Amino acid sequence: MSKIFIGFDVGGTNIKIGCFDSNIKLISKTSIATNADMGAQAVVENMGQATEKLLADEGFSLKEVIAAGLGTPGPAKYRDGIIIRAANMPKFKNVPIRQMLSERLGGKAVVFENDANAACWGEYVLGAGKGIKDMVFFTLGTGIGGGIINKGKLLEGAGDNAAELGHLIIYPEGRKCNCGQKGCVEAYASANATARRAAEAIKVGEKSSLRKVLDKNGEITCRDVYEHLMKGDKLARRITDETAKALAILCINMLHTTEPARIVFAGGMIAAGRILLDRIKDYFNELIWNLKKEKIEICFATLGEDAGIIGSAALAFRTAPDRRGRG
Amino acid sequence: MSKIFIGFDVGGTNIKIGCFDSNIKLISKTSIATNADMGAQAVVENMGQATEKLLADEGFSLKEVIAAGLGTPGPAKYRDGIIIRAANMPKFKNVPIRQMLSERLGGKAVVFENDANAACWGEYVLGAGKGIKDMVFFTLGTGIGGGIINKGKLLEGAGDNAAELGHLIIYPEGRKCNCGQKGCVEAYASANATARRAAEAIKVGEKSSLRKVLDKNGEITCRDVYEHLMKGDKLARRITDETAKALAILCINMLHTTEPARIVFAGGMIAAGRILLDRIKDYFNELIWNLKKEKIEICFATLGEDAGIIGSAALAFRTAPDRRGRG
Repeated sequence: MSKIFIGFDVGGTNIKIGCFDSNIKLISKTSIATNADMGAQAVVENMGQATEKLLADEGFSLKEVIAAGLGTPGPAKYRDGIIIRAANMPKFKNVPIRQMLSERLGGKAVVFENDANAACWGEYVLGAGKGIKDMVFFTLGTGIGGGIINKGKLLEGAGDNAAELGHLIIYPEGRKCNCGQKGCVEAYASANATARRAAEAIKVGEKSSLRKVLDKNGEITCRDVYEHLMKGDKLARRITDETAKALAILCINMLHTTEPARIVFAGGMIAAGRILLDRIKDYFNELIWNLKKEKIEICFATLGEDAGIIGSAALAFRTAPDRRGRG
Repeated sequence: MSKIFIGFDVGGTNIKIGCFDSNIKLISKTSIATNADMGAQAVVENMGQATEKLLADEGFSLKEVIAAGLGTPGPAKYRDGIIIRAANMPKFKNVPIRQMLSERLGGKAVVFENDANAACWGEYVLGAGKGIKDMVFFTLGTGIGGGIINKGKLLEGAGDNAAELGHLIIYPEGRKCNCGQKGCVEAYASANATARRAAEAIKVGEKSSLRKVLDKNGEITCRDVYEHLMKGDKLARRITDETAKALAILCINMLHTTEPARIVFAGGMIAAGRILLDRIKDYFNELIWNLKKEKIEICFATLGEDAGIIGSAALAFRTAPDRRGRG
C-alpha cells in the first residue's frame, strides 16, 4: 500500500493542497478558495472534500494517508493546535483547527505549523537549504514571513511564535505597520509595501513613468515597480533601493542574532530576479560591521510557490511514526 | 578528592578567576590585571599562576581541577579555540587560547565561550533563568553583550558568534558604532553610550545639572546620569528615556526572533534600578504589536559581576565527563 502525506498551505484567499509520496515527491496538487467567511467548520469540510478528490484522481483514498501537515499564518498556538485569531480570517477565533482537520481526515495525525515556518522547512530539506544547518528564511509577499533553522531544527520560541521576522523594528520613528508597531521591516520591504510606497510618492507629485500605470489601473503592483526600474525610472530606483536596504538591515540583524550560514528569500517579489538580490547584497556589504568577515550566503528560494505544501508534508513526514524515506 | 571547576572571565582590563565545587558553588575568587600588551603567552602564564595561588589558598592544587571554562569577548572561533583578533587586546591575533590555557593548567579540559554567552549561561542555570527554557540576556556595560538560550541550550550560530545583540541596527541613519556599523543599539544604550550622549548634549549647550560634573571630573559616567535623573534633571530624563526606548526596541526585536519567555538585563548599568527597568517595560508595552498579548518577563540579573565566572565554570561542568551534581 502506498504511503501518502498531505500538505496544506492556508492563506487568506486560497488554500493549496498537495499529495506527496514518502520521499516527499509531489504527486498532485490543487487549490481551493479559502472562503473564510463561511466559518471554520465549512472551510475544513471543503479541505476534506478537495483532499479526497485529489487522492481519488490519483487512485488513492484517505486510507493511504499516513499524516498531514497544516500551515497557517501566525500568531497561533501551534503546539495546542489552535488558531486564536487570524488577521485575514476574522471568523476564525479560538478554532481547534488541528483536531477538526484530523477528524475530517479520518483521524490522521496533523502537524500544525506557521505557514512561513512550513515553507522554510520545505526549502531547508528539499530546496535552497542544502548543505547547511543554520538558515534564515524570508517570504516577501503581502507581508514578510520568516523562519529560522538552528542546527537543523525549526526554532519554535517559548510561545510557538518565533521568527515573526517581518515585524523587526528597523525605523522606530517610521511607517505604521498593520501589526500596530511603527517601523517594521514589513512596512517597507514586502511586495505590497514596496508598491504602496511607489503609489504614495506619485500621489504627492513625484515624477515617474509609473504614473501612467497608476492612472490606467488605479493601482501599482510590486511587479510594475521592478519593471519600471529595469526601464530606468528614477522613482522606481529609489523605492527599490529602500526595499533592498531594509532587507539588508534585516539580514545583518539576523546575522547578529541566530547567525545563519545562509539567508533565503522567497515569495512573489523574488520574481524581480538579480536586480533585487544584488542590491540586497550590495547594501549588506556596505552596512555590515568590520569586526569579522562574514561568510554568509544570501540567495533565493528554489521551490517556488509549492514550498508551503512541500514543507507541511515534510513536517508531517518527520513526525509520523510510520515513515519511510527522506524528509 | 575534591572536584574543582575553574571559571575565567577575560576582559580588556581585568581577568576574573573563580574556583567552584561540583555544585558550581563559589569557593573563592580573584582578579588580576589583563595586561594584554604583554602578549598572549604572558597573559596565560599570569592566569595559571593566579589560579594556582587561588587553589593553594584553599588547600587545593591543579590535581583537583576537573575542567575550566574561559569566556572572552567575541567575535572568535570558539569551537576551534582561537581568538582571531580582540577589540581590546590588539596583540591577540590568531591566538590558540584554549590549548594554551589547557597546557598551562596541566592538560585540563578548557571550554571556550563568548563572555556574554558564559554570563548568560550562569544566569540561566543559577540566576535569573529559573523555571524557563527560552531566555535572552543582555549585559549593559562598555558595550552591550548578548546571549540566547533556546530550549535550554545556548544558541551558537553557524560560525560560533550568534547573539552579538548589541549590534542589532535600530537606527539605520543613526550614530556610528565602534564596530563600523551605523545605528547599533550599543551606540545608544550601553552604559558608556548613555554617558557619552549626555556629555555630547552638554558640550553643544544643553542645560543640565550634569554640567558641573563634567566640568569637575572632565567626564560623565552612566551612574552620574541616573543620579541626576533621580534629582529631576531634564537632560538626564531625555538621555535615559532614549536608552530605555532603544532597549525596549531590542526586546521587541528579540521577541519576534527567538521569542524568549524572559529577557534578563545585566551589567553595571542595572545598578540604576527600577527607574531603568520600569522605563524599559513602559516603552516595550507602548511599542509592541497588538496581534498577540505577549507573556514575556523583563527583569534584572541576580548573580552580579560573578555571572561570567559562574557561567564559565558551569559550562566546564556541563561538558566534563567526570562531573557530579548540578549545572
